[in-house]
Amino acid sequence: MSETVLAPYVHRVQYYETDMMGITHHANYIRWMEEARIDWMDRLGFPYAEMEKRGIFSPVRSVQCAYRRSTTFGDLVAVNVSVRSFNGVVMVIGYDMRRADTGETLCEAQSEHVFLNREGRFVRLKREWPAFCEAIERMMGEGKGGEP
Amino acid sequence: MSETVLAPYVHRVQYYETDMMGITHHANYIRWMEEARIDWMDRLGFPYAEMEKRGIFSPVRSVQCAYRRSTTFGDLVAVNVSVRSFNGVVMVIGYDMRRADTGETLCEAQSEHVFLNREGRFVRLKREWPAFCEAIERMMGEGKGGEP
Amino acid sequence: MSETVLAPYVHRVQYYETDMMGITHHANYIRWMEEARIDWMDRLGFPYAEMEKRGIFSPVRSVQCAYRRSTTFGDLVAVNVSVRSFNGVVMVIGYDMRRADTGETLCEAQSEHVFLNREGRFVRLKREWPAFCEAIERMMGEGKGGEP
Amino acid sequence: MSETVLAPYVHRVQYYETDMMGITHHANYIRWMEEARIDWMDRLGFPYAEMEKRGIFSPVRSVQCAYRRSTTFGDLVAVNVSVRSFNGVVMVIGYDMRRADTGETLCEAQSEHVFLNREGRFVRLKREWPAFCEAIERMMGEGKGGEP
Repeated sequence: MSETVLAPYVHRVQYYETDMMGITHHANYIRWMEEARIDWMDRLGFPYAEMEKRGIFSPVRSVQCAYRRSTTFGDLVAVNVSVRSFNGVVMVIGYDMRRADTGETLCEAQSEHVFLNREGRFVRLKREWPAFCEAIERMMGEGKGGEP
Repeated sequence: MSETVLAPYVHRVQYYETDMMGITHHANYIRWMEEARIDWMDRLGFPYAEMEKRGIFSPVRSVQCAYRRSTTFGDLVAVNVSVRSFNGVVMVIGYDMRRADTGETLCEAQSEHVFLNREGRFVRLKREWPAFCEAIERMMGEGKGGEP
Repeated sequence: MSETVLAPYVHRVQYYETDMMGITHHANYIRWMEEARIDWMDRLGFPYAEMEKRGIFSPVRSVQCAYRRSTTFGDLVAVNVSVRSFNGVVMVIGYDMRRADTGETLCEAQSEHVFLNREGRFVRLKREWPAFCEAIERMMGEGKGGEP
Repeated sequence: MSETVLAPYVHRVQYYETDMMGITHHANYIRWMEEARIDWMDRLGFPYAEMEKRGIFSPVRSVQCAYRRSTTFGDLVAVNVSVRSFNGVVMVIGYDMRRADTGETLCEAQSEHVFLNREGRFVRLKREWPAFCEAIERMMGEGKGGEP
């Protein structure tokens, strides 16, 4: 149980995130994925800023985002973050976005991340930051890596 | 030949598009996909603004983006747009992004689009805007829908 | 006293808001002004969305922003909103941004707003939304319009 | 004459720059100021990237922006850049934004910049980059620093 049952990250849609179609512009969801991922790492006890202080950088290798229902200014979007896979080199994170009020699905998304040092070479994360790897594996073992 | 051999859309990376990792923030590529798609429609002779004046709206149903090499401030990114599939209801667009100077692949991306009227119902595009459908099909026939 | 002693709006700086200088890109502060202004209207009991439902739109006529200290990823920015002047036609809002932890001043800003109807003509706000005007004037009377 | 009669920088308003009011969101103009400023330095022969390579950073100390007419998706905005003042420490840049088609004024803006080294201390620009200072002073002498 423990940290895997983290409450979702909640984002309120800002006016500047809407476009002339009257809905949230789709590129913003990619930013919310980052917001939720960073918040999730913070709450797991492994803040992104600490990772970068250790000289580990985690660029995004890919993103996928399927939009189910639109949102607009003022809406509250609840983002559930899960680890879909992690092999010590590539981490795949899933995002399940729902309306905070009704629970309706808004967006299903995924991002892939690698871990590099300052020189741009792959970091052996199990050696460099074992506590983080263990936390990830514990989460996956508890089934949070299943479906969202 | 004709309009299928459109020159790529070129975007210069802005300072405000970089992040503290010193590279372009990954969410911007989703915006460049939109820039290139709109420019491509303009050059095909079917401006997005005209489409909206006809009461046709084209929300994004999904995006996928695989980042191959990073870019940074001042880089010129050439975006080649192609139609991967179109069944009259859903159009899948591919984006092949390369460095304008060396031709190196930067990003491979895809977006899915539907066509709705003001009430949010599917538009029969072949009836509502046949010239656009024909242009799309001509492009696909000429093999631009192949690989990006 | 009452609603004029609203707690500041707090924004956490996102990774995507930084630039390659390693600090928050300056254009984001203009967005935070909007976030804080909308939050402030919500808490006053006059949500922006309700205003637009009444057919009143409030475009920004000008912004000014003086940056005192930089911020970066993860920083908490507390924004105090005050009404600097309001003559029934133009409302000038002040923003005092400080580090939430130390209270150090980060930015002093101001925006001017007008109130228009759907046709783009000035709205007589005292007639169209008197309760909102009274709330504004009460705030100014209590000295929140003084220094930021 | 020479470089002071630079053609304006032209920005095409993107779909993602609009908001639900149907017009360009006001924060984007701050970004266009940066686009135009960087393009202007490039064309003067003093690229921003070269400045940073010399270890000189130029954070923005303040911005002001007065919006005269709104713009929307597809509009072409011509930005004229001028140096309003420069004392070797602080440079004030003016921006005159007009519709590229009709010449109507859209926005009048200004930004203040300082020049710092990597340690965040003021750089004596006349010693560190004299050619740039001379170019600036030549432009001001030719009256481009006058009104916009």
